[in-house]
Order: sequence, then C-alpha cells, then structure tokens
Amino acid sequence: MAQQSRGVEVDEYGSPRSPLNSCGTTWERRMSAQLVWRDRNEIPQLDPSVGLPHSEAVESTLTDFYQITMCYAYWKAGKENQHAVFDLFFRKCPFHGEFAIIAGVEEAVRFLNTFHFSNDQIEYLKGQLPTAKEGFFDFLKKLDCSKVTVYAIPEGSIVFAKEPLMRIEGPLAVCQLLETPLLNLLNYASLVATNAARHAMASAANPGNRPIQLLEFGTRRAQGPDGAMSASRYSYLGGFHGTSNVRAGHLFGIPVVGTHAHAFVTSFEGLRDLEGEPKPLGTCEDFVQLVLQYRAEFNRKVATKPTMQNEGELAAFISYALSFPKNCLALVDTYDTIHSGVCNFLMVALALHSLGYKARGIRLDSGDLAYLSKEARKLFKATSKAFDVPFDSLAIVASNDINEKVIMALNQEGHELDSFGIGTHLVTCQAQPALGMVYKLAELDSTPRMKLSQDVEKTSIPCRKALYRLYARSGVAVLDMMQHSADPPPKEGDRIFCRHLFDETKRCYVVPSRVEQLLVCIWQEGKSVGHRPSLKECRDHCIQSLKMVRSDHLRTENPTPYKVSASGVFYDFFKDLWQKTSPIFELQ
Amino acid sequence: MAQQSRGVEVDEYGSPRSPLNSCGTTWERRMSAQLVWRDRNEIPQLDPSVGLPHSEAVESTLTDFYQITMCYAYWKAGKENQHAVFDLFFRKCPFHGEFAIIAGVEEAVRFLNTFHFSNDQIEYLKGQLPTAKEGFFDFLKKLDCSKVTVYAIPEGSIVFAKEPLMRIEGPLAVCQLLETPLLNLLNYASLVATNAARHAMASAANPGNRPIQLLEFGTRRAQGPDGAMSASRYSYLGGFHGTSNVRAGHLFGIPVVGTHAHAFVTSFEGLRDLEGEPKPLGTCEDFVQLVLQYRAEFNRKVATKPTMQNEGELAAFISYALSFPKNCLALVDTYDTIHSGVCNFLMVALALHSLGYKARGIRLDSGDLAYLSKEARKLFKATSKAFDVPFDSLAIVASNDINEKVIMALNQEGHELDSFGIGTHLVTCQAQPALGMVYKLAELDSTPRMKLSQDVEKTSIPCRKALYRLYARSGVAVLDMMQHSADPPPKEGDRIFCRHLFDETKRCYVVPSRVEQLLVCIWQEGKSVGHRPSLKECRDHCIQSLKMVRSDHLRTENPTPYKVSASGVFYDFFKDLWQKTSPIFELQ
Repeated sequence: MAQQSRGVEVDEYGSPRSPLNSCGTTWERRMSAQLVWRDRNEIPQLDPSVGLPHSEAVESTLTDFYQITMCYAYWKAGKENQHAVFDLFFRKCPFHGEFAIIAGVEEAVRFLNTFHFSNDQIEYLKGQLPTAKEGFFDFLKKLDCSKVTVYAIPEGSIVFAKEPLMRIEGPLAVCQLLETPLLNLLNYASLVATNAARHAMASAANPGNRPIQLLEFGTRRAQGPDGAMSASRYSYLGGFHGTSNVRAGHLFGIPVVGTHAHAFVTSFEGLRDLEGEPKPLGTCEDFVQLVLQYRAEFNRKVATKPTMQNEGELAAFISYALSFPKNCLALVDTYDTIHSGVCNFLMVALALHSLGYKARGIRLDSGDLAYLSKEARKLFKATSKAFDVPFDSLAIVASNDINEKVIMALNQEGHELDSFGIGTHLVTCQAQPALGMVYKLAELDSTPRMKLSQDVEKTSIPCRKALYRLYARSGVAVLDMMQHSADPPPKEGDRIFCRHLFDETKRCYVVPSRVEQLLVCIWQEGKSVGHRPSLKECRDHCIQSLKMVRSDHLRTENPTPYKVSASGVFYDFFKDLWQKTSPIFELQ
Repeated sequence: MAQQSRGVEVDEYGSPRSPLNSCGTTWERRMSAQLVWRDRNEIPQLDPSVGLPHSEAVESTLTDFYQITMCYAYWKAGKENQHAVFDLFFRKCPFHGEFAIIAGVEEAVRFLNTFHFSNDQIEYLKGQLPTAKEGFFDFLKKLDCSKVTVYAIPEGSIVFAKEPLMRIEGPLAVCQLLETPLLNLLNYASLVATNAARHAMASAANPGNRPIQLLEFGTRRAQGPDGAMSASRYSYLGGFHGTSNVRAGHLFGIPVVGTHAHAFVTSFEGLRDLEGEPKPLGTCEDFVQLVLQYRAEFNRKVATKPTMQNEGELAAFISYALSFPKNCLALVDTYDTIHSGVCNFLMVALALHSLGYKARGIRLDSGDLAYLSKEARKLFKATSKAFDVPFDSLAIVASNDINEKVIMALNQEGHELDSFGIGTHLVTCQAQPALGMVYKLAELDSTPRMKLSQDVEKTSIPCRKALYRLYARSGVAVLDMMQHSADPPPKEGDRIFCRHLFDETKRCYVVPSRVEQLLVCIWQEGKSVGHRPSLKECRDHCIQSLKMVRSDHLRTENPTPYKVSASGVFYDFFKDLWQKTSPIFELQ
C-alpha cells in the first residue's frame, strides 16, 4: 500500500523506500509524502502582515478527531454557521498558586491567520470519514478564519482562575475546530511562563538582595524539539534572562549563554595535552607557563591541598581561557569542586588578570550549593587579598536540579550564588506539568449556553462576557469583574457591586480609580487587530503586570486568592439560568 | 535594528513589519527571516534514502550554546578530530519502575542525516562569538555526520538503567555537538513510550481479562505542538491503539478516533432544534419520530426517572446518529449520566438497531467511573432483555483524568469499561515528566575517559563497550552484560562470570541459551545502516520485548531490578581505573 509521490515510492515516514527499508510492513500507509515536504511559502495567509506559526505542526489538523466529526454533524444538521461564542479559561491556578501568566497569544494569531485544510489533508479526512457527504469536504476546503473574531488578555498579563482569557466568536463549525490547537498553543506556553515567573520571584527573594541571573538550560530534557523551543521562549517571557538553546536565541532573539561541560574537562588528561608550540595570549608568549607560575604562587599563598588539584582539569581551563579570554567561566565540579576546580580556575583567572582580561567565574553542577558557593566565595576573597586583585565578586552559577523550592531553601540557608541555570524542573514544569485550560461554548445564536456539572464550580459560565480589572488609588488591582458584554462598562469613581459567582456570601463594593478592559480584540474579519507586541515587550509587560497585584497573591505558601467576581446583574442572571437548566434529582 | 530581508523590513518574528507592529521596540533583532521561511527541500541530506526530521526544530542549532563554545575550544586546541566515543544512557528508570522503552532512534537517524550549519546559522553564531577566529566558521560550515558512527538498541526495545542505549563515535567536535539534540530526541520519546507501555500493562490486568482499547487524547494538554505529535507517535509505539490527534494520524498512520464533546450537546436546546424538514435515515423517512416512538417504549419498559432526561441532549444524539449511523458513540455526562445521557443514547441506539445500524456505545467523562460503568452496563442489559436486542456488550469508554494508578484502582474495584481515553497524565508524564538521559565521553583517541562523582553510582562508565542480553532456555532474558567492545562476545552454552559494577557482593554465572548483541550499527560513514523499522514494527517489537523479561521486573509495586552487569574482566578494569583517577581526600 506504499504511496507513489513525485514518482518515488515512499514509506510511511514519507521517505523514498530504499532496498534497506522495503522489506517492510503490511501496515496500511496513509501518509502522503508532501505533508512533510510542503513548502511553507505555499501556506495561505489571510493577513500578510502576520508571520507563519513557528512550528510547522501548528496547522488545522493539529486537533482532536472529534472536532472533525462534530463539525460534520454540525454541517449535516445545518448548524455550521450558527453564531457561537466560546471562552478559553482554566479552573485552577497552577503550582498551588493563585495566579498565572497568559502566553501563546502571538502564536494563536499566527495560527488563525494560516488556518485552512490543504488538499492532502482533505484527502486524508475523506479516508477517515468514508460515509460523509462530498459537500462537507467542499465546505472544509473553503473554511478559514475570515469570519472569526478573537479577544484575548494581552500576552504576559497576570491572570486568574475561571475568568475568560480568550473569547472566540464566529461560525460554530470553525470555532469548534479551533478548540484543540488554541488550547495546545496557550496551555503549555502559559504554564511555563508562570513557572518561570515563580522561579524569578523566588530567586529575587535572596537574603543579600543580589540581582540573580536566571538561565534556561532545559533543551535536552524538554518534551520534544518544539517543547524545547516553547520552553526557551516562554521562560524568557516569564522573566528569565537567557537560554542555552541556540535555535531559540537565533529565532526569538533571546540572549544565549553557555560555557563548557564535563566532557570538555575529561577530554584533557594532563598538562602534556598542551605541549608543543607555545600558546600565546595577548601580550604573553606562553600562556601555559604564565598559569604555571601563578599556580606555584597560588599554592604557596592560598591553596591548602595542592595534591588534590587535577592537572587534566587545569589543562582544560587553560585551553578554554585561550579560546575565551574575555568570557572565561569554568565548570569546577568534575573532580573535587573546592580543592581542584575552584583552585585551578583561580590560577587561570590570575594569569588572565595579569594580561588585562577579566575572568567571569565558575559553575557548580553538583553537591551542596549553599556550602560550596560560600567556600568558593571565601577562596575568591582570599585570592583577592593575597594577590591584590578584584576577585571578590566573580560570578558563581549553580545548575544542578534547581527548582523553586530549592531556591527558597538556598535563600533560607544563605548562599553566594549569582545565577541559576535551570533545566528539567523549569521546562517540564515538574511541579505540575499541565495547566487544565478548557474551551467552552458560552453562547449560540445569542442564546446563553452552559455545561452543567454535579460540582457547581465546574459549571461553565454562559454568555458573551466582558472582563474588567478594577484598580485602587494606590495603583494596585483590587479585583477582576465579569459582566454581560452589552452592559455599560464600570466607570472610574462609580461604586460597583461585585459578587463571587459561586459563593453567595462573598460580595463587596469597589470604587475603582482605574478600570482596565482585559479582553482586547486581536483578530477580526481575517485580520490581526491592534499592536502585536514583541517577545521582549511581552516580557516587560509580564514583569510590570506582576507588580500590579498585592504580593500576598503571589507568594508560595498559602497565597491569598485574588478576587474574580461578577457584576450583581450578571450574578443574578447566572443563578437564574442554573436553576432553570440543572435537573433536580428524584430521590426514591 | 530591524533586518532587511528580500527587500522587506521584518520584525524579530521574521514577519514583514506592518504599520500595526512597527511602533516597535528598541530591542535588538538578531533574527533572520529566512530561518522561518526556509524551504525544507534545500536541507542537504547525506543519505537520500532517509527522510527529514518530522519537526523543523530538529536542526544543528537545537543545542546548548556551550556545545558551540566547547567546539570552538576543541578546535582552538587542535582536538576537534580526536576520535571520541560517547555513551547515551539514563541512571534511573522512570516512574519508580525497573524498565524503560527506548524510542526516538528513527528521528535521531533523520537528524544525523541532515546535520549541518546553514549560512544564516553561521552568521548568527559569528555574532554570538565575536572574538572567534574566522577559520572556525569555515570548519563549522563543512561539518556533517559523514565521519560519525552510531550504534543503538533497536527502537521499541525494553532497556534498563546505566546501560549504553546509544554509542556515538567520531571526531570529538561533531560528536560533542550532537549531545543536546540526541538527548532531546530520545529523552521524551522514551519516557512517553514507557509511560504508554505501563498504562497498557495496567489496563490489561482487569479482572474480566477484557481486551482494553487505549486511546491517546492529549493534544490539548501536551507541551507544545510538537510535544503533541511526539506524544501521539510514541504512545502508539508503547502499545496504545489510537489517537485523537488528526495530524499524527495523517503523518504516522496511527488510527484516529473521536466522537463529540460537551459543546456539541449544549449546542442543542431541545427537540425543536430538529424541527423543519423530516430527517430520513436508511429506510426510515423520519428518524426523529422513530426515536420518539422508542423513547415512549423505553420509558415504559426500562427508564425509572424519565423527567430527568434532557431533550437538548436527545436532540444532539439524534443529530449525531444522523451523521454517523454506523459509528454512534455518545458522550453521556453533560446533564445526568445515567438518567439522562445513557437513556437518551439507548433510545437512539434502539432506533438505529431497528434500521440495521449497530451503535457503538457511550463515553463517560466525569464521576465515579467504576460505579457509572456498572450502572450503564445494567441499563444496556435491561434494554437487551426488554427489546430483545444485542446491547449487552456496547462499548463504554472512560476519559476523565485517567492514569496508571486510576486504572489499577478501577481494576481493584471491578468495572465495565472497554476503553480508556488518556490525555494529560499520558502525554505530560505527570508521574515523572522527565527522563534523565545523559551523554558521557567514554573514550578519546583509544584512551578510556570517565567523569567521577562523589556518588560512585554517578561515575560514568569508561571505554568503547559492547552490550549483550543473555537469555535462559525458557526464552526469558536473564541479564544484560557490558564488556570491552574488542573482547570476544559471550557465546551460547559458555559459563559466563558476570558482576554488578557498583556492588562487589553481587556476582553470578550465566550459561545463556541465546546471546543478543544489543547495540546495533544504525549510522556509518554518512549512511543509514540496517533496516529502519516502521512505527508499527517498533510497536510490535515493543510489545514483544516486554514479554521477554520476567513480569516481576515490570510490575508497579516494588518491581525487582533487572540485572545490568559487566564481564569479570571489565569489572576489574573499571575498579582499577576508578582507583587511579579518583582523588583521595586529605582529612586534616
């Protein structure tokens, strides 16, 4: 059943079938080779000012099959063009916290802009729906987002549970098809941005109030290649300063960082690896000799256990310094962190200093980071004193299994770290690897719709809604309030009655000094609407946005829930509809 | 600082700068537009029989920046062509288990085949390494995997902690650059395949020994778009039967499944939504009337609480059946699962049956799945009896927050489920979202290299090694044994002395009935070597491979560790090298 494509027999991966892999399978091959090889320039775009999605996997078929079957059933029932309003939201903040950061909005716009079904996708779907009428596929073929309107809270904003983060309006069938890809694009992006923001806040709370550089090191542990790209991008948005991921640096302009690994150190056996031609550096004709002179002096004045110094490691550091004299940061834990690694680094740093170069510092990748950072700092200071050099504030980077809790424990104990390189815990969001965003029908042909649940808090909130953030005179956000989108917006200075939607005992009046409309139109009639902020702008907005709420909403232990409320009118409407819709159980 | 590209001013996303997004940022834009728009056909391939990687993110720059800086330092030190041997392995099996499934090998071959630095990547790297010599970039420009040789355990095999899963040999610089992308490609793939295999084993252990269909439903919760694609692909490899992900179905030939969501049900308000033209189905001219006749009869004979039946839900099921008469599976928990959903479904199923169509069953997405499945089955049986129809074995699919533990709890309690749809827990591997694969230098220019650690078990295992699986006469694998690759391989019938590498008290003799060489050459001199199995073949191999070890290695609670050992000769060599390399601490 292998398919023919451009005259070449291909396997199910779209590869030409060679003699080596043609002893093949009997498995039916549905794959068409073009799918993999499609030229991205051929993808139609509604709005030429908007770029393509950054992953080629972001296309109309990155969706659950039930969206297609539902779409067919809508079409068959003549409902495909009913005017639908969907809300995208989550019910519970991640990481046992009381906030999240919304991210993925720019990618969502790129997806809306290119949404369509190609001929080969249509052919595939025909195979999957053999009994569907031909007219349905004609309908699919013409489908795009030119009749869809989308509102979203700006990317990088602080957001809360149960409020609509995105409102999607338009013909029922196409809005339904957008559910899975939009959830995919926003769920992980928002989760990792939130995780990054939490790590940034934890690291900022160090006892010395030192500014801490946060570096994302997760490419190898991320959930697949694009998982790595998203992790780098949205960690930066959430407040990180750099990434090790070169492709993310290249594609998104994030600063890239990195020095060397253990393999570099173990690739040197000893100083004999540096024999041969003398190695000049700057004004020095033989840098190796210069380091060895400093070694002798350092071991007289500072080191306590010179026999523990590994010469392969010293050779590696010398070699690295020859390559990066202005940017020398050494991984010091291959043999013994303090007595070998830090000492070998300091000898090289002294030699560099004598030539006018400033070494950057060290990286710790194992052991007790609080203790080792303090011991290393002591050696830095001792060296400063013994050699009259400015080594007190050389950088100490930590990169072993760091997470939010580890950072807080290090703050508690006190440490001398200047930077954290965070991988696994950041990018896989180990503390909670999924954010449960959902996408619910709120209104159809101007009639409110709700999905009931035996758990009333899981009931979806009906109607086309507007969402406002009300600020106090101090500039701090007091609460978010939703209401019917057609109702007049709350105004500065008005006394506004707000209610908790699921707890009738919670209500308050607010007199806002400022009112912010949170859901902003980003897509209308096939065009991107409004300013599309750059990644850096989203990052700045995120940092700013976190400052607009009280710190007790942000803390790790028992944070205070931020108030997400409804107008009095909306509350009454919601309760009334629930009473009418929910079945009353008949007990026997 | 916006770049010019093809005469169009572009933003940092590579989009043409429109008036809307040009009110811009002062942020330096390093991005080159071509990166996003590059035609994939331009990517050079060493072996034309091998396809491109499935994600365009899989390229040379999907790596940590320190690989590039190290590469420069190797080049500067004249070490770039030293012959290196790296091992890829993990130290601890995931999910508190004692096994894993290796996956991602095919993708690794595709990556090796296309590894190169494009001109725009080189330009970017020049900007990041402003002091590096020009010759280094000429060196990078010419780099590919034509001098690299890779051995791997076949994709889908059961594998264990601390044994080499992949051996990468070739010039030091290029092998170093492969570290991050290879780890990225194998880490998550193996993790999710292992997770899927564990779910498959848990579901197979149901009390009724019913064959259970396992469906991957995770696209919306996966970690980014390609995360979703990898999740679908490797869940299938690990033993799942289908996915909801249409693109994965299309690209990899995995069976796709899906019916409808709550939104479909709530989009219908009542039977008036079906008014208008009569709806014919098969030989029946008005299917709605037919269902209503069956409703009257069903409520007389079977239903106990007809007032709880929601008519909007019934309208939705009728509409769905009109679209998919041969494949009607209803989501029954929008209002009340048993008294509304299951009853409404059965009325429709009876009408379908009378026309010669067989309904498929129901999906439960909330509530107590054990209880609800049993109650639903009772209603199925009552309907069979009352109407003399074969409804006893209609399918019951469960899809709410399922994971391995939930499945085992359901087995314990007893249930009537035929299928699980699993999303979040499967694709994000919530129980352990990262597998800690590492990539360590084992040999350089024929000299063994090891990375020490204060924790001896974290010491890397030096040398170019071969790995053998020794089987007992029963066909069961007894242990895996590593040794120097140059030593003669163990032979069937020989009495072989095997030792635990880190515990000198553990040793044994094995007389194998069969010996399997586990590390097989997959890439040599720029060519793919050997048969490249299809996804389906890898899946079959995985299912087979799990049967080759004792079940106590696979169980969830306190599994027995499988023996990963070394030959006696290798053990002695390893201990000797450790003694020579490890520094002896000087206590004061």
